[in-house]
Amino acid sequence: MSLRDDLLQMGVRARQASRALARLSSRTKDDALRAMAEGLEAARAELQEVNRRDLDAADDAGLSAAMIDRLTLSDGVISGMAQGLREVAALPDPVGEVTGMWKRPNGLMVGKKRIPLGVIAMIYESRPNVTADAGGLCLKAGNAIILRGGHEALHSSLAIAAVLDRVGREAGIPEGAIQVVATTDRAAVGELLQLDRHIDLVIPRGGEGLIRYVTENSRIPVIQHFKGVCHVFVDASADLERAEAIVMNGKVQRPGVCNALETLLVHRDVADGFLPRVGRALAAAGVEIRGCPETMQRIGGAVPASDEDWDAEYLDLILAVRVVDSLDGAMDHIAAHGSLHTEAIVTGDYTSSQRFLDEVDASCVLVNASTRFNDGQQLGLGAEIGIATTKLHSYGPMGLEDLTTTKFIVCGQGQIRE
Amino acid sequence: MSLRDDLLQMGVRARQASRALARLSSRTKDDALRAMAEGLEAARAELQEVNRRDLDAADDAGLSAAMIDRLTLSDGVISGMAQGLREVAALPDPVGEVTGMWKRPNGLMVGKKRIPLGVIAMIYESRPNVTADAGGLCLKAGNAIILRGGHEALHSSLAIAAVLDRVGREAGIPEGAIQVVATTDRAAVGELLQLDRHIDLVIPRGGEGLIRYVTENSRIPVIQHFKGVCHVFVDASADLERAEAIVMNGKVQRPGVCNALETLLVHRDVADGFLPRVGRALAAAGVEIRGCPETMQRIGGAVPASDEDWDAEYLDLILAVRVVDSLDGAMDHIAAHGSLHTEAIVTGDYTSSQRFLDEVDASCVLVNASTRFNDGQQLGLGAEIGIATTKLHSYGPMGLEDLTTTKFIVCGQGQIRE
Repeated sequence: MSLRDDLLQMGVRARQASRALARLSSRTKDDALRAMAEGLEAARAELQEVNRRDLDAADDAGLSAAMIDRLTLSDGVISGMAQGLREVAALPDPVGEVTGMWKRPNGLMVGKKRIPLGVIAMIYESRPNVTADAGGLCLKAGNAIILRGGHEALHSSLAIAAVLDRVGREAGIPEGAIQVVATTDRAAVGELLQLDRHIDLVIPRGGEGLIRYVTENSRIPVIQHFKGVCHVFVDASADLERAEAIVMNGKVQRPGVCNALETLLVHRDVADGFLPRVGRALAAAGVEIRGCPETMQRIGGAVPASDEDWDAEYLDLILAVRVVDSLDGAMDHIAAHGSLHTEAIVTGDYTSSQRFLDEVDASCVLVNASTRFNDGQQLGLGAEIGIATTKLHSYGPMGLEDLTTTKFIVCGQGQIRE
Repeated sequence: MSLRDDLLQMGVRARQASRALARLSSRTKDDALRAMAEGLEAARAELQEVNRRDLDAADDAGLSAAMIDRLTLSDGVISGMAQGLREVAALPDPVGEVTGMWKRPNGLMVGKKRIPLGVIAMIYESRPNVTADAGGLCLKAGNAIILRGGHEALHSSLAIAAVLDRVGREAGIPEGAIQVVATTDRAAVGELLQLDRHIDLVIPRGGEGLIRYVTENSRIPVIQHFKGVCHVFVDASADLERAEAIVMNGKVQRPGVCNALETLLVHRDVADGFLPRVGRALAAAGVEIRGCPETMQRIGGAVPASDEDWDAEYLDLILAVRVVDSLDGAMDHIAAHGSLHTEAIVTGDYTSSQRFLDEVDASCVLVNASTRFNDGQQLGLGAEIGIATTKLHSYGPMGLEDLTTTKFIVCGQGQIRE
């Protein structure tokens, strides 16, 4: 059977499964998620044995230590997957909620009822644990999922999906609810993106190249999660101690993630008071500073920033720093160089805080808090499936609710239209 | 300058305009909409003179009377556009609403704030009045719009947009807020669909061919509005008088629209009681009936339905009729042949009503009411820009709120992440 037919059959199975999934009770889904968690823990030895094959192949292929680390199903990673499934089971079920109901002049009651999206395809890079994390979230929201992970992790992903499928079916989850594309053929992604009759949403997670490829080749709507060039603006009225803590947290607590701080903007009025002190703290933490001329005057050891630095997502212990004239100057810089991801202001001024919240275009805009809070768990959504930097459907961290949509429901007593 | 450069410049202008539009006060937008309404009325003679050119060309090209009717800017159509703009001005402004705010354990206040989508492209067929209707809705929601209408209406659309632009700018609306693609070159649509950096959403309105073309060629998210194969299911417990009124209203009140009734499903237990009476009423209204064998036995003059009839969107005085065994039989038929648009049940039974509302997948599911109510105005959304039959972002009639998205806002007091 051809690759195209294989994928088409997966799509058909997923669509069928999605119809049954949409009707499952919350209890069935939650019991299944908890059983899956136990199933993964019980299959620990078996999963690690299969994982060994992926790790040996990675060794042979000379993959980096970081890549191999991401591939490894350690005891901690397996426990993490199980814990994640239990946490999703504990979240409220979004499906079936009526988000409001209103009465029309003719007596019709009109409401919106939350329903699953249907079938979701997730295209991601090497971590095999995404199989369980994304599978659990999609299942809870009543969706079927087709997973296409990195080829380096294929055996591990298939083994995880086999456990979820076996345990899930025993708990009443339909066949086809969680499927992994079982080929390393690179053409599979292109074929998958043509199945707009069987797949409702594609979520690519990985580098910019992958996301662009999916966007340009998909007939199915795509949720994009592009890079995070996140700013902190220290306003003239900022509490400088607070500002320093927020800058340090944004830059050094976990520099390799998309909500880490990349560019610091400082109001000229506090440049003298703030830059030398934050410069010392950053240097002590091993952060390289790339500054504008005014920053260079105030932080010894800073190197001059080039034009590219204002658009860089370093994901590393490097920080671009620029002095600006005003709140408007900061917002202009953010509009020109931001990536619609996460933007923060540190200020003591009411009007500045309100204007920043109103006028800055980003999936998450913060006042007096670290950029690191732009995360589904931190914002209170529970687990997230990604952070959207495009505006259609969802903008920002996507939790369970973002994996659903609403239909209109109407209750009448025989009304007809005049 | 090339077509591609022309369109790119329109995109850049629209993006710039969208930044200014996002910050406009509700008062400025509403005053501008009312001024635009007056402007269109004041320019009546001038618009009709330009419209004459489109009508003459349509005559020469031998367009049908129906097409020419849709092209004509009659006094009524111009008043309708003005009235539409005034109604949009009277609707509440969706932009800036905070749709909920919650407190995290660390004291952070997290909320979602409604913001415009940005730039919307509308690709539609011949009616020139869409220029004002869609332009007004997008403006109120704070979006810039690029309109690409049917080439038969080009002069009329450009003249309408010129009035809106002139009056709008006097009222504080930025240049580029409402633009019409000023060429009949068919390649323009394809070029427009590549501008994913400048356009956030594409809404095609027209035949299935147009929608498919846009979906297959767009790098920009597309809201699809496909055909409506709408059903009414008359349950065993239905009030038959009510059922007859709902069937007649769905089929004959305005047969040419997407929420008109196309297939009637009747529970076997009431087939004898219902089919002969509704058959007489339908015949009296000039409706042709295409029935299953059991329908044929009960309605004289019915013709046998072919397999294609169960999937047909007639948009005409024709109705497919089928007898089913049960609620499940009706829902299976709808799952197989429905188009996710509008589905209704007539029933006196509580469980049937709840199961139908829960289990039927359609943008609008109704109990004891006409399918004709699936319309933004009728459901209480105010004016609509279309009815989405795909699930991403919006599902069903799209009003002002559907032309916006939300960003996360966070108010802290110096919180950092542990």
